[in-house]
Parts: sequence; structure tokens; C-alpha cells
Amino acid sequence: MTRPERLDHPTRQAQILETAARVFTEKGYEKASMLDIARATGLTKAGVYHHIDSKEELLSAIISYGMDLFEHKVLDRTIAMRDPLERLRATLRGHLLLVLRDRPREVTVILHESGALPPQARSRINVRKKRYIRFLESTIRELVMRKIARRVDPTIAAFALLGMVNWTYQWYRPGGRLSEEDLAEAMTDFYLRGLLQPDREGSGGRPAAPRRVGTA
Amino acid sequence: MTRPERLDHPTRQAQILETAARVFTEKGYEKASMLDIARATGLTKAGVYHHIDSKEELLSAIISYGMDLFEHKVLDRTIAMRDPLERLRATLRGHLLLVLRDRPREVTVILHESGALPPQARSRINVRKKRYIRFLESTIRELVMRKIARRVDPTIAAFALLGMVNWTYQWYRPGGRLSEEDLAEAMTDFYLRGLLQPDREGSGGRPAAPRRVGTA
Repeated sequence: MTRPERLDHPTRQAQILETAARVFTEKGYEKASMLDIARATGLTKAGVYHHIDSKEELLSAIISYGMDLFEHKVLDRTIAMRDPLERLRATLRGHLLLVLRDRPREVTVILHESGALPPQARSRINVRKKRYIRFLESTIRELVMRKIARRVDPTIAAFALLGMVNWTYQWYRPGGRLSEEDLAEAMTDFYLRGLLQPDREGSGGRPAAPRRVGTA
Repeated sequence: MTRPERLDHPTRQAQILETAARVFTEKGYEKASMLDIARATGLTKAGVYHHIDSKEELLSAIISYGMDLFEHKVLDRTIAMRDPLERLRATLRGHLLLVLRDRPREVTVILHESGALPPQARSRINVRKKRYIRFLESTIRELVMRKIARRVDPTIAAFALLGMVNWTYQWYRPGGRLSEEDLAEAMTDFYLRGLLQPDREGSGGRPAAPRRVGTA
């Protein structure tokens, strides 16, 4: 994680990355030009090149920044929690709220564009992604060992979590019938019920969020 | 759904669409050229243009074909099932196996590229996607009404399902420790445990698949 203190107070560099992420998401990475980025950020093309050398480097910087945000706002706060159930619950809820609510969502969405990166940058980001997956697997494995979770395969359970979280950007639109908080609570609850032993449901001291039925 | 009888015996047209889907997935839609498609299919460029007018039309045809496959192999077989739990279980399992095992996976993966389509083609495919989402929501709502499922929000539960299923292509590699069938069983089981009332778990007469722990 780089310079965490800057993440709470976005600098000019962070603003450029957030705007560029939005442009890439709207136009597509291949189609978007550095001139599009310059226009959207209110800089000249030379001004953008003062900050960033190339479009590839820009994508790479956005993806690192998205990963910084995730680690700073979620993982660094949960990784040391001793109780594995609280650790998993807080990670899942934090990851959902980051994707749903915090900062331009495009910064986290674009993490999935890492296929367009040159090999070195791609393998750097894959190391960080794998670290998160291993953390999820080992937390789930601990819950299974302690008979808090059912005897699930930790890899399948980890990727079920990532699928639920990462898919939300495909369908969730803020300002509709579901608030970000309601959705994060309901999805966390849904996931944990799939994972935990029946008699552990609702454990952890957090009451289930109210859920509405039949209004979709 | 168009010409379902052709889907079990791929025609030359279907082979071109499957190969093109693979090329688009490997190179990216924007970067791939019609010459790349021609080379991969063993046709001349003129030969490809005999079948398809433009790259956009090709993407549109692949996406329609992916939706045809899904409707023919999954939805048409489950939509009329009377028991809502069996209907949901068979749909989820069938969708997973389609994504994991059947035909070049690229055909189903590329469904998520519909943002690159011109507006008319995009809205045609969105009507078909929405039909599936409404079907999932109404099946889940029926399970809630009959107190087989917990009081979940049908929209959240429907998109949790789609997230789990559609994310598998991001991480699952065939030929590894998990077979397609094991993964489909384990994920279906995981999802239904999240959805159903505790006393309904395991209902439907299908035994839980064996799951391995700690070998990831």
C-alpha cells in the first residue's frame, strides 16, 4: 500500500485517476484517448502527460490506486481481527460498501480490466489480488475447522463471495429502492447463511437487516 | 429462440461464431480484426464477409447465439417446472454447467460485452436478459411466499445467483482439482443454503455433493 494518508484527501493525481477511470469505463479502454482524458479532467493534453507517460501507465496507475483504496479502507482494517467470523463479515461488508458507495465506483470496477496491462504490471496486480483470495480462503478454512462454518470448499466459498460482490456493479444503481447500506447488509447476511452452520446464523451480535419482499 | 434444432449440431455459421467469440475474448473486441477472425476460422476475409457484414454484426450474432444456447439448454427445460425449488435448482445447476462445460465458454462469457453493441441490438439482448432476471425473481418470490425460502429480497437473491455463476469464468480453470460437476453441485448447494429456511435444506431429494476442505 502506498501513501495511505493521501487516500482520504484526494490529491490532483488521485482526481485525475478517478476521472480517467470514469472515461475508460464509459468509452472503453481501447477507444478512449488521452485527449478524452484531458478534456474530462480540464487539463491540456500536455498537462495530462506531465502526470502520466502513456495510456497503459494510466490504466496501471488507476488499478494500483483502486487496490490501494481497497487495502486501505477494507483489508488493513480487518486482516488483524482475531475473531474469524467478525473478520469475514467486516471484510465482506466493507468490500461491498467500497464498490457501492465510496469514490467513483469506476476505480474499483476497472480492477477487472487488468488483462489490458503489460505483463509486468499485470503480475504485480495479480500478486495483490491473490493475497486477498488467500486471506478469504484461510479465514473460511479457520471457520470450517472451528465448526462455525459448514464443511464447504474454501476456494469455492471465496469465489462465491467475490462473484456476489463484484457483480453488483453490473446491476446496482444508486438512488433506487435499495440503499447501499441495505444491500450490503442483506448480501452479507445472505452469504453468511450459505456459509455458516445453521445454529451459528445471526451470531456475531449484529441483528439481521430488515428485508422487503415482493416489491421488485 | 431461433432454430433450436441447429444448436445441438453446430453448423458452419455456429463454428464461426464460436471461433470469433474466442478471438474476441483473447484479443479484446476492439483490438481484434476481421482478418484475425478469418485466420482463426480458416476462411479468407471474403469468406467471413460472406457470412457476416461487419464486426459489430458479428458481436451481435455471437451474443444472440449465446442467449439461444442458454435458453435452449437451460431455461426452456426448467421454466415450466411446477415445483419452484426444483425449478430454481435445475436452472442454477444448468446455467453453471453451461458456463463451465458446454461449448466454447467464450460464447457465454461474451454476453457481458453487450455494451459494445449498437443501441438497437443492445436493447434486444437486454429484453432477453431481463426476462431471465424476472424469472429468477418470481421463482424466488414464490419460494418466499410458500415459506420454503427465508424472507429475502428476490432482487438481491437473483443477482447474488447471477454474480456467483457469471464470476466463475474469471477464476475457474478446467482440468484442475475441481471438476465442473463438483463445482456446479457445491455452488448450487451453497446458494440454496443461503436462500432456504434451515429446515428445508437438502430438500428436493438430491444429496449434498462431497466437499473437500483444506486442499486449496
